[in-house]
Amino acid sequence: MRSFVVVGNLATTTPDFSLEDIPGTSGRLDILCRCINSAFVLSHGIRRDVQIYLILRGGGAPKTIRLQGRDLRHLNPDERTTAALLKKALALESDAKWRRSTPGIFVRRGDLADLEVWGEGTTYYLREDGIDHRGVLTAGDGTFVLGDHIGLSAEDEGFLEGLDAKIVSVGPRSLHADHCIVLVNNELDRFEATVQ
Amino acid sequence: MRSFVVVGNLATTTPDFSLEDIPGTSGRLDILCRCINSAFVLSHGIRRDVQIYLILRGGGAPKTIRLQGRDLRHLNPDERTTAALLKKALALESDAKWRRSTPGIFVRRGDLADLEVWGEGTTYYLREDGIDHRGVLTAGDGTFVLGDHIGLSAEDEGFLEGLDAKIVSVGPRSLHADHCIVLVNNELDRFEATVQ
Repeated sequence: MRSFVVVGNLATTTPDFSLEDIPGTSGRLDILCRCINSAFVLSHGIRRDVQIYLILRGGGAPKTIRLQGRDLRHLNPDERTTAALLKKALALESDAKWRRSTPGIFVRRGDLADLEVWGEGTTYYLREDGIDHRGVLTAGDGTFVLGDHIGLSAEDEGFLEGLDAKIVSVGPRSLHADHCIVLVNNELDRFEATVQ
Repeated sequence: MRSFVVVGNLATTTPDFSLEDIPGTSGRLDILCRCINSAFVLSHGIRRDVQIYLILRGGGAPKTIRLQGRDLRHLNPDERTTAALLKKALALESDAKWRRSTPGIFVRRGDLADLEVWGEGTTYYLREDGIDHRGVLTAGDGTFVLGDHIGLSAEDEGFLEGLDAKIVSVGPRSLHADHCIVLVNNELDRFEATVQ
């Protein structure tokens, strides 16, 4: 399983944002929508072996939304319909237990440290000064942690260090999280195609 | 200069589409908006050495919109504001001469064969059965032609064959045009970083 984890430092935890102005009213949920597209969308279908966790810290107790490719339905490539799916998930009552919103989309209260992926395979932290990911990704899966436009806090970085996360970079230019996910998916696709 | 050319087979040539439903009302202009993001957007700014041509064939005489990184202003990463910029360009009266809509965005009547990029450096045609682009891109630039969800017609392919275009692929999975552009940009970034 490939897992992506994206931290939305300002991303809203409520459905009270406008689909007519996603960047301006949701704490940049548009960034997370583009990450969802990059994680799942193929020319003819979606990636079933991928999941993504969105850590939303923009108000009150943090929430996490999980999208699971295996069960995912109603995902279109455009930002607005993806944001509408997130809005629906955020409208659910939530506590520490996962609740299903639509097929393949789940929500609960919780932050980065609460995820159940830690310890399953290698954890990679995408940062522009990391070592080149080419040749470093030695399996078709792993857990890949990325920040939004603000990046990760010192506390987040300390947590990942405690997990012995490898700090990797996707290339010589500093890119948005969604572009990094495209590049990681491609690198893992290539690895899988070689070993098959 | 890196040039991307994306053919929008059904993409509207008029501004009469809704920003509330871009995929459903514009002949999939959303695909082209995402290509613009992939072509230009960096973490801290936009790529100045890139241009993109959008070939719009969804109604009446085809139009071409050109976005030029060197002069581009008002580009945000989200789909809706990009679509609003295209709407503005499509509202201009247009003939065979380029007209500026907003800084760095130009529009005219014309199709694929009318572009002025042909013959400037190598032309690459992105197709899933092409040879791997890694190691093939031997300069930091080139002209890269991609299709939307429908792909290129036999006539388009004949035209590119006449230009001696190299048919290349970005990896083992079939991807949307915007993801291909991210991968090409990364490959060219890496090439440039090596030769510098």
